[in-house]
Amino acid sequence: MKQNDIKDLSLADKGKLRIDWAEREMPVLRLIKTRFEKEKPLKGIRLGACLHVTAETANLMKTLKSGGAEVFLCASNPLSTQDDVAASLVKHDEIPVFAIKGEDSKTYFSHLNSVLEACPQITMDDGADLVAQLHKLKIKNYELRINNAKYEIQNTNGNWEFYGSSEETTTGVIRLKAMEKDGALKIPVIAVNDSDTKHLFDNRFGTGQSTIDGLLRATNILIAGKIIAICGFGFCGRGLADRARGMGARVLICETDSIKALEAVMMGFEVAQVMDAVQVADIVITVTGDKHVIDEKHFKAAKDGIIIANSGHFNVEINLDALAKMSKSKRKVREFVDEYQIQNTKYDIRNTKKIYILGEGRLLNLAAAEGHPASVMDMSFANQALAAEWIFKNRGKLQNKVYRLPVEMDQEIAELKLKAMGISHDALTAEQKKYLESWKEGT
Amino acid sequence: MKQNDIKDLSLADKGKLRIDWAEREMPVLRLIKTRFEKEKPLKGIRLGACLHVTAETANLMKTLKSGGAEVFLCASNPLSTQDDVAASLVKHDEIPVFAIKGEDSKTYFSHLNSVLEACPQITMDDGADLVAQLHKLKIKNYELRINNAKYEIQNTNGNWEFYGSSEETTTGVIRLKAMEKDGALKIPVIAVNDSDTKHLFDNRFGTGQSTIDGLLRATNILIAGKIIAICGFGFCGRGLADRARGMGARVLICETDSIKALEAVMMGFEVAQVMDAVQVADIVITVTGDKHVIDEKHFKAAKDGIIIANSGHFNVEINLDALAKMSKSKRKVREFVDEYQIQNTKYDIRNTKKIYILGEGRLLNLAAAEGHPASVMDMSFANQALAAEWIFKNRGKLQNKVYRLPVEMDQEIAELKLKAMGISHDALTAEQKKYLESWKEGT
Amino acid sequence: MKQNDIKDLSLADKGKLRIDWAEREMPVLRLIKTRFEKEKPLKGIRLGACLHVTAETANLMKTLKSGGAEVFLCASNPLSTQDDVAASLVKHDEIPVFAIKGEDSKTYFSHLNSVLEACPQITMDDGADLVAQLHKLKIKNYELRINNAKYEIQNTNGNWEFYGSSEETTTGVIRLKAMEKDGALKIPVIAVNDSDTKHLFDNRFGTGQSTIDGLLRATNILIAGKIIAICGFGFCGRGLADRARGMGARVLICETDSIKALEAVMMGFEVAQVMDAVQVADIVITVTGDKHVIDEKHFKAAKDGIIIANSGHFNVEINLDALAKMSKSKRKVREFVDEYQIQNTKYDIRNTKKIYILGEGRLLNLAAAEGHPASVMDMSFANQALAAEWIFKNRGKLQNKVYRLPVEMDQEIAELKLKAMGISHDALTAEQKKYLESWKEGT
Amino acid sequence: MKQNDIKDLSLADKGKLRIDWAEREMPVLRLIKTRFEKEKPLKGIRLGACLHVTAETANLMKTLKSGGAEVFLCASNPLSTQDDVAASLVKHDEIPVFAIKGEDSKTYFSHLNSVLEACPQITMDDGADLVAQLHKLKIKNYELRINNAKYEIQNTNGNWEFYGSSEETTTGVIRLKAMEKDGALKIPVIAVNDSDTKHLFDNRFGTGQSTIDGLLRATNILIAGKIIAICGFGFCGRGLADRARGMGARVLICETDSIKALEAVMMGFEVAQVMDAVQVADIVITVTGDKHVIDEKHFKAAKDGIIIANSGHFNVEINLDALAKMSKSKRKVREFVDEYQIQNTKYDIRNTKKIYILGEGRLLNLAAAEGHPASVMDMSFANQALAAEWIFKNRGKLQNKVYRLPVEMDQEIAELKLKAMGISHDALTAEQKKYLESWKEGT
Repeated sequence: MKQNDIKDLSLADKGKLRIDWAEREMPVLRLIKTRFEKEKPLKGIRLGACLHVTAETANLMKTLKSGGAEVFLCASNPLSTQDDVAASLVKHDEIPVFAIKGEDSKTYFSHLNSVLEACPQITMDDGADLVAQLHKLKIKNYELRINNAKYEIQNTNGNWEFYGSSEETTTGVIRLKAMEKDGALKIPVIAVNDSDTKHLFDNRFGTGQSTIDGLLRATNILIAGKIIAICGFGFCGRGLADRARGMGARVLICETDSIKALEAVMMGFEVAQVMDAVQVADIVITVTGDKHVIDEKHFKAAKDGIIIANSGHFNVEINLDALAKMSKSKRKVREFVDEYQIQNTKYDIRNTKKIYILGEGRLLNLAAAEGHPASVMDMSFANQALAAEWIFKNRGKLQNKVYRLPVEMDQEIAELKLKAMGISHDALTAEQKKYLESWKEGT
Repeated sequence: MKQNDIKDLSLADKGKLRIDWAEREMPVLRLIKTRFEKEKPLKGIRLGACLHVTAETANLMKTLKSGGAEVFLCASNPLSTQDDVAASLVKHDEIPVFAIKGEDSKTYFSHLNSVLEACPQITMDDGADLVAQLHKLKIKNYELRINNAKYEIQNTNGNWEFYGSSEETTTGVIRLKAMEKDGALKIPVIAVNDSDTKHLFDNRFGTGQSTIDGLLRATNILIAGKIIAICGFGFCGRGLADRARGMGARVLICETDSIKALEAVMMGFEVAQVMDAVQVADIVITVTGDKHVIDEKHFKAAKDGIIIANSGHFNVEINLDALAKMSKSKRKVREFVDEYQIQNTKYDIRNTKKIYILGEGRLLNLAAAEGHPASVMDMSFANQALAAEWIFKNRGKLQNKVYRLPVEMDQEIAELKLKAMGISHDALTAEQKKYLESWKEGT
Repeated sequence: MKQNDIKDLSLADKGKLRIDWAEREMPVLRLIKTRFEKEKPLKGIRLGACLHVTAETANLMKTLKSGGAEVFLCASNPLSTQDDVAASLVKHDEIPVFAIKGEDSKTYFSHLNSVLEACPQITMDDGADLVAQLHKLKIKNYELRINNAKYEIQNTNGNWEFYGSSEETTTGVIRLKAMEKDGALKIPVIAVNDSDTKHLFDNRFGTGQSTIDGLLRATNILIAGKIIAICGFGFCGRGLADRARGMGARVLICETDSIKALEAVMMGFEVAQVMDAVQVADIVITVTGDKHVIDEKHFKAAKDGIIIANSGHFNVEINLDALAKMSKSKRKVREFVDEYQIQNTKYDIRNTKKIYILGEGRLLNLAAAEGHPASVMDMSFANQALAAEWIFKNRGKLQNKVYRLPVEMDQEIAELKLKAMGISHDALTAEQKKYLESWKEGT
Repeated sequence: MKQNDIKDLSLADKGKLRIDWAEREMPVLRLIKTRFEKEKPLKGIRLGACLHVTAETANLMKTLKSGGAEVFLCASNPLSTQDDVAASLVKHDEIPVFAIKGEDSKTYFSHLNSVLEACPQITMDDGADLVAQLHKLKIKNYELRINNAKYEIQNTNGNWEFYGSSEETTTGVIRLKAMEKDGALKIPVIAVNDSDTKHLFDNRFGTGQSTIDGLLRATNILIAGKIIAICGFGFCGRGLADRARGMGARVLICETDSIKALEAVMMGFEVAQVMDAVQVADIVITVTGDKHVIDEKHFKAAKDGIIIANSGHFNVEINLDALAKMSKSKRKVREFVDEYQIQNTKYDIRNTKKIYILGEGRLLNLAAAEGHPASVMDMSFANQALAAEWIFKNRGKLQNKVYRLPVEMDQEIAELKLKAMGISHDALTAEQKKYLESWKEGT
């Protein structure tokens, strides 16, 4: 048999191979796509998405388009764009994509604006950047009918009706709820992250595996026998802790919440303060959703040769500015490994130590690996697709609040996933349902 | 050194040893007790508790009494009473206890009434039996001031003011929320089970370990290499699944909720219908909180020699009546093991199979072992003690609803537990708090 | 259905129930018994066994008798005898048993002599006591034909021909190999412990589970979140480490062998010196096969409230004499828990700490639980039964050495066990066998 | 700070970065190198190595050269060569390297010959190819003094004295022992693989992690919830099984050896025949060291979409010829993923299924990832370095047999590794040593 060579393919065709490979692991989205093709529930809607431009996202875009929507895509992170995927969406699916891997900040935001200039009626976000940008537009009262100077040009009827947005990440949802609390939120938002089929799986199993994957690709070091400190014991943190332990590491947990810290202890993990952890750990990974978790004092205290990485959404968890200021020199020793050399004691300039930062402190799984595996994105993006449909169905009835997708949809997604995996389970019998609802039966 | 012999001690003194041994593992309750002794926050209150009469409960009773309450205790399960503990409470602590191990149903309910006859102003429940009993009294409108025939005798002033109750179990809370939904709940209730420091620990780590303990004591069989099916993947079920796997079993999960079933799959467990599970499993354990999870058809399909047990609150999860009806004979082969012999095929009476039921289908950890370890009850009962204090502080202000204890108390309990274990962890810095609350910072 | 009550049974009938319950989990021994009944391979042989008198041993004795042997049994440990089992063997199987639970040292050795006085031609040992005793007899040159004063009385023909012995434990095998090295071994011995189907399973899965079982029954404390130090990382130690971790503990390993210590590290365990471990551990368990692993200096350094137990064969691993000497007082606080109070500092007599010793430092699984589960003893005792047959078949041809049972028998036992569990696996194909044997095929 | 860019470096300088990164994780080899630099134990020896040309191997070569040897290196696998590493060894260390990534079979063997033409006195092998090639030379009786036509040219004195070889892999050792058994082995060989510090770590932890790494890089699929069948439960297989489970997979084991199969069961794994496994598994990985483990009948039975890979030494474990013959088409869908499409039923040509083969059936960790992590190679190569020293020291005294490195060296390597990790552990006390050696102490 003659063997094809991927190297000979065009960028767009390479992207197509990648999109199809991902599709293989996205059976729930596939089922929704099949229904969307038939029912066209998004017919005539303009939909703007700001997501990591990956093969999985491509499958979501194709699904939304199958549902009748006109789709516009930009990147939610300047570094995560897979250029071949973008090319394939443009060439094979005629979906406009505004994203180039490694684009600078100015281009990044101009790309967000390009999507907004299409006057999308529904938006999708991964970190709330698009919604934030949208809020900087002048918005006419609560209906969000925008007809000011800038956007009027785009709209022949002088009106741009906006139905709502959905948000993918914990970080974005925290941001949006803060906006809601402040009365600053001007649109209805579906917190896709709040769906069980999203955060119980994507955050835990997706981040868990892909962070290990990123660590291995970035460093190729043996995990067994290493001490790994994980800062943050939320869904991402515990997913990562399970995997790190599963690869043979001794795992330390740093967590500010008492109940989570105690859970970690009861699960057999060691719990420590960051200051104590950095003195014994070989590797430290942050997944807190917060800022400067590894700060100047920690770099000072850290063990020589420590490897530090971040798997939280933003690259603020490691204070790299502080590290740069402390360092005598910095050099790249592997593609995703920067070696900082810092003076260890005040008086002896020869006494230095090395600190290794992976992927410039950005999301390790996207920087050094390929992001979340398709199988978890399957459920996250099934939520996204259903969220778009639900927003459209309920247009006009929603308030400017952060919503959760109805629990039945969440259950339905899990059910479809189980079926796709060939797994069957019991339903409650009528007698059992009645028993659960009744309070009269007792001891 | 001369050696004491426990056998020579009186029942009450044996109980005291047992209570003191448990106290060793209850540092949070100990701290609350110390504070209660000083502050007397329950001064003058009559408090009736319907709980498993165990060494841990004894420590809670002593704590409440230290806080100034007059305490009355009855059993929440006819089989779980530790008679020596009861004797010790009476002798050493002057706390009236209405409970005898193995008491019949009539005595059981008369004991509940004995506690109610003391006209408690606050009650504590483990399965909602006391509250159910309380609701069968004639109650004068919503204030629950009782001055009818039966109870007037007990009350010199003709009035019995009731402040509220607390409930320990998932099962009880389900029952109480059903009552609330029906408008049948006439008192405020604190769902202690809803505290994170209760259900995240007691249900998961307590039930997990103590069920394995009960299984080992009841059967002494090797778990490694066995197939164990666990029905129910709530907190109890997953705690048990972790432990069963940790002991070397191959674990099958049966679960009606799709999301939980999918979680089980992603955690590497097999998921199956009960009918399929009973055909391959060596051991089946129910922890669903529901009824007839193992029913006639499952007994019919089950593998010869299967061992079946229950760790859910009520003994309704295994349909023992159906099993008895199907059986040719039944005999006890070990203290907590009943062997049922059933005819395997309709036409061949010699073709029989054996089914083993542990602890008569009652809570395995209480029937065959010593219930939850003190260390988890420490937190559950810290919640109970604080719930009593909170009910009293907020008397008159509460509605006839199911409440959760304030989250700060929950956190405080976790914090005390960590401290008692010698574990320190970070707090959020001011900068980090600000970051979490702000939505302006972005990509 | 009328329910039988175990309490009403005679001691021997209670023992029978227990023996039958164990038999359920011993399918390999059952298959051997069936063959022995037919083939009578031990016809006419006198066989003396010094083993823990448990339900599993009873099944071995019955198997040997089925093979035609005349069997005599004494205990290998004064504390592990199950009196009901002994009674059942005497009553139901007419096998003489010389063992009483709790017998003193003098009685213990007189019981060993009672077995030897039956002039057994094959012996079985668990700790090499019977062989040691045998060697104290006057022996006529290497053939071990004994016709001296003491034993002549027992033998009508003045000759007692001895074929060989088998040994169950690591400890016993170490002892016997030391004897062989010294030229002191006067009989052939089969080291049953050297069979893979013995030490890979009994030591690892048996000791692992039953030690946890003993710990739970002795203390009822929560294992999750505790720090457990395990001294010794041989088969027993790593079996125990897996189980302790599986129950949620944070596990520390103390091991003198560098390679084993490094393995422990790579498996994600912490490795520490005993002195460091006792300062942080909640529980310490010794499984080294060596002496004074926990010694005076460790008691001095230990954390207040530490629980110490032993699961190695002999009760020498914890230096209890040293502890007794250091202690101000000692009392029993639970059936298998002794509390030692020792003065913590030289100058302040009020400053004391408590050390808890389980089961008087004897094998925890036998002291506080029911010993190894039947399922592992199934394979160990299958080895014993086949060892007896093999010794007899090869009588006269064996040297005074420590032998291993032929590897094919070992494989056969594993194969039978798998079949009994309903598990099938592949055999090598002819092509695969050839490939493995050939060195000509290469890159 | 100015940032260097790895892309701008020369191939040799890229290789140097990679070698130095590996060196960071090879503290034991570093210590040996330091000693070798001082002692020069290999002074004047010609040493030929046939190993995977990786960064770790480079560090071994540098160590041997530091010891005074003249070193020649060729590849042990045509696909595993890291060209930059080869370039760096040549440029920075003046070590001749005969290896090009992707070289064809003819070039591969000519490279082996290039090393042999240097008349090495000691050789190192990874799969026994060099030794096999050496044996095809005409050899003058047992002394292996070679002075025949071909090699005379290389030797001015007409004699090439050969001291011995060492072998890295299980596969190679099996091959060499087969040669020894056949009387075909003409040189002494050290089976480095037999050292505990090699096979207990490299095979188990190295293969375990790097196979997962290869799987992730090749496919990027989610492992959690997948069914992974592992063929072979030797050290490599169980290492892989631990990691696959640790990543959340449900693991099936296929194993021909009964004892190993039973061990797998007792460790909680499912054991199945390959035919049954391929019908349910999502992924199958072979690590048997044998041939055609996945054969025509398995492809026929396999689940649609199954992913099959090999982590055994040779690419014979999957019968790719059979698969190619059965297939209608084959195409590359990702860099290391070949999709074979085969007709599922005889009569319906539209009914096809897909089988995915990773890395063309070659060692997955080398094909798709970077081979074993440096930390395990540290110990393997410490064994290699010490083996070379030991062969030289004992030259003339060794027979044409397969040797194991003395156990003290093995222990020493483990001890050095522990020290480098900052871990201390106890030594036996004099009393404990005496106890272990004595057989007089008993019950």
